[in-house]
Amino acid sequence: MNELTEMIVKFREERNWKQFHNPKDIAISLLLEAGELLENFQWKSSEEAVEVNRDKIVAELADVLYYVLLLSHELGIDVEEALKLKMIENERKYPVQKAFGSNKKYTEL
Amino acid sequence: MNELTEMIVKFREERNWKQFHNPKDIAISLLLEAGELLENFQWKSSEEAVEVNRDKIVAELADVLYYVLLLSHELGIDVEEALKLKMIENERKYPVQKAFGSNKKYTEL
Amino acid sequence: MNELTEMIVKFREERNWKQFHNPKDIAISLLLEAGELLENFQWKSSEEAVEVNRDKIVAELADVLYYVLLLSHELGIDVEEALKLKMIENERKYPVQKAFGSNKKYTEL
Amino acid sequence: MNELTEMIVKFREERNWKQFHNPKDIAISLLLEAGELLENFQWKSSEEAVEVNRDKIVAELADVLYYVLLLSHELGIDVEEALKLKMIENERKYPVQKAFGSNKKYTEL
Repeated sequence: MNELTEMIVKFREERNWKQFHNPKDIAISLLLEAGELLENFQWKSSEEAVEVNRDKIVAELADVLYYVLLLSHELGIDVEEALKLKMIENERKYPVQKAFGSNKKYTEL
Repeated sequence: MNELTEMIVKFREERNWKQFHNPKDIAISLLLEAGELLENFQWKSSEEAVEVNRDKIVAELADVLYYVLLLSHELGIDVEEALKLKMIENERKYPVQKAFGSNKKYTEL
Repeated sequence: MNELTEMIVKFREERNWKQFHNPKDIAISLLLEAGELLENFQWKSSEEAVEVNRDKIVAELADVLYYVLLLSHELGIDVEEALKLKMIENERKYPVQKAFGSNKKYTEL
Repeated sequence: MNELTEMIVKFREERNWKQFHNPKDIAISLLLEAGELLENFQWKSSEEAVEVNRDKIVAELADVLYYVLLLSHELGIDVEEALKLKMIENERKYPVQKAFGSNKKYTEL
């Protein structure tokens, strides 16, 4: 991911686009890309959507990751590390014996 | 990221939660997390939001990455590779001399 | 709807909250409420969600309408009139004989 | 709004599109339209966005209202009435003397 972040930042610097970026606007763009991702599933079953729109779904997932990495860079954080810590916390919050097969627990995640 | 994906998949398997997952529902959850991320900026300037809600923003970014990795896993794709290819394509689509400092080009990204 | 808009504007004026409102932030809040609406369907079938979360769904729909009316007021437009015009345009864009029972046409709406 | 709902339902019936509609998918579409609305504000100040994209913003607001009315119809509820009740509740939850000019109270709305 470090390599990817470097590509993203270099791409932006070469085009002098930092001026348009602030965390709030990046967060908006991240959400809009998540919307474009979901759009591929609109009025379709999950299976049909994946069959018909697989390439578009992959492209939109990449766009979401783009903004996740850009915003993490702007905030000076390591998002992979943050997720690792969160997973360890989740292990504690959702113990296997209680959470096993439970939709209820899951929806609270 | 491979390590992270493994943590996520193992966490899910131990809890027998795969049954609740299909790509469409994961895409919905990804978007909802992107919404929770943006919620930290609601009615605030970007600067104020980062100052007041930094920790929450980091946590929500991690949640978005969680679903990006989970959905990539479900689709059997390498999202980092997909983003690299996309960045190479962007280099071509937005040549430095045309895109330099231009908001117009940027918004089409 | 005029009566509703008046309630909303009066409520805001009494609390001196106009200062926090600009169209961009209202558009963000509208989207976040749409997210809270969708959250009621997360990891559930449509039927299960309506059965379990009916009251919450109604409340979130009301919140979305709140921001639709507030933003329309800020822009000085009549959103009901705008929708009527749009429906007339849709009648033309999706003629019955072509659109009948077609998912394809529908997804382009 | 009753007149609008009738137009929407008649439009759908004539095209035999009800088969594609279930509350979950309508909620997804509502959110996607809210995203298209917000897209008009992407990388722009609120003022610039309204100046440049006014017509598009109005069109997207109408699209959001379309799905608010359609989903309300599907659920058999009167969303205007629901919002009126919510406003009365808000009057109680955010008393003028406490909420006056307070960003804090507002963000909890």
